[in-house]
This record gives sequence, C-alpha cells and structure tokens, in this order.
Amino acid sequence: MRFVDRYLAFLLAQASSRISREFHRDAEAAGLSVTEWRVLASLEGSDGESIGVLSQLTLTKQPTLSKVVKRMEADGIVARTRVRSDRRQTVVRITPKGHLLTDALRKRAIDHQDRVLEPFGQAKAEMLISMLRDLLALHPASPPADDEPSL
Amino acid sequence: MRFVDRYLAFLLAQASSRISREFHRDAEAAGLSVTEWRVLASLEGSDGESIGVLSQLTLTKQPTLSKVVKRMEADGIVARTRVRSDRRQTVVRITPKGHLLTDALRKRAIDHQDRVLEPFGQAKAEMLISMLRDLLALHPASPPADDEPSL
Repeated sequence: MRFVDRYLAFLLAQASSRISREFHRDAEAAGLSVTEWRVLASLEGSDGESIGVLSQLTLTKQPTLSKVVKRMEADGIVARTRVRSDRRQTVVRITPKGHLLTDALRKRAIDHQDRVLEPFGQAKAEMLISMLRDLLALHPASPPADDEPSL
Repeated sequence: MRFVDRYLAFLLAQASSRISREFHRDAEAAGLSVTEWRVLASLEGSDGESIGVLSQLTLTKQPTLSKVVKRMEADGIVARTRVRSDRRQTVVRITPKGHLLTDALRKRAIDHQDRVLEPFGQAKAEMLISMLRDLLALHPASPPADDEPSL
C-alpha cells in the first residue's frame, strides 16, 4: 500500500479537491467564480466577516480577496459596513441581492452534498460532518500569511 | 448557524488546509518544498506513477510538476524509468536516496497524524480514514486540466 493511502492530510486534500471541483462546475454555470461562490457561501447566515476571517474561510489571499470583494460590492451582492462597537473595523456582509442570487445554487450545493454522502447512510454521514467540525474546532485557522492588516 | 458550518465541501477544504499547513512547517524545516514533500510522499510504497497521476496525487499542475520532478531527478531523489510493458511511457519512482531523505519526515507525519486523531479515539479515527478512502474510491480524480499529455 502506498504511504499516502492511509495519510490523513493526503486523504483530506484529495477529498476536498475532488468534491469541491465537482460542485465548482455548478457555481461557474451560475456565473460565479469559485472565489465569489466561496465568499457568498461563507457570508450566508453570518452577521458579517472581516476581510481577514473571510480570507481564511475562502482560502484566498487577502490582496486577491480584497479585489474580488470590491467587484462584488460594485455588483451589489455584498456590502462593507462599519462595526458598531468599533468604528475603525469594517465587515463584509451578503446583501439581499447576493442572497437571492445564490438561492438556487445553495440548494444545488446541498443536493450535491446529499448525493456525496448518500452511500454512507445518515448516521455515518452525520458522524463525518461532526468529526470534521470537531477537527476545525481543535485546529483554529492560523492568521493570514500576508502582511496586510487582518481586520 | 452559517451555511458553511454544515457544508461538507467547506469543512473538507478547511480541515485539509489547516492540517496540511501544520505539517508543512516540518517539511520545510527538512529542506523540502511542499510540492517536493507531496511528490516523495506520493511515490512512497508505489511502483511508480506517471506525471499525469502524480499531478493528481500532489494537486500540482503538470507544467509546474514537470519542472519540480526534473530538479528532484537531478538531486537523485526520484528517477524516471520506462514502463516495461509500454516503452513509450515513463513513470517517476522514488530512489533509495529519496526514501532515506524522507524517513524521519514520514515518521513525523505519522506522529502528527496520531496527535490530530488522538482526541477522537481509535475507532472513530479509523472510521474517518476509512470514510475518506471510500469517498475517494467513489469520486475518482478527474484527468488534469492542462493540455499536456497525461502519460
């Protein structure tokens, strides 16, 4: 057996790449780049995220992300607003237009996930989701490598 | 709850990124780039892989990978050999020097994996590995997007 066939980091990287790639076709068919889809998906159900956190959530470097967010802001699908408790900070939020734009796509994402998990049965599927969530809780995202301020 | 907090593709991408990043420090401390470590790890225990398959295993585009493999060949840590059954095909293999070079690093990789999985207990850890392996079997890697020949 190859070393990587039992190596968690390899298995996660391959699973992530293959499952995401399958769905990215749907995102692109809906007229969104992979990064735009990641931004909108990450903001869905959130009260707003700083560019630093959004960079971690979308796995996109801050300078690239800032440009993408600027374009999305111009399109009216996200908005930058100041944080009430700290007026120097801004967060990015999804707008009602952005929410509407991704409505069908989020349903397709969930359908895709259901198809991916279906062969495992509900109990094992739930366990996989819950173990991945626990893994993330145990391994917080490291601050972005770029020298831009993270907030 | 944020949409992504129960979205498999997001959880896999985050878990992969965070777990890999933790270990990449060790690879770099051993004088290997992330891609070089991925190449050597992917070839360990394998009879040799075509550049096309190696591109999928290391999640590296073929033109980039070809350059890296060329350098590694010059360093004597991998070798390209013709396939006996089809002389037009070449595969990349790890050399004894490459194997020796990664000996300590593979042990560190397994130690890191054990620490990552330890909080879950052995049964759940085994189930995670086995589910990820099943997921990969159900979702074969798509052929590389580059226009270079894959074999």
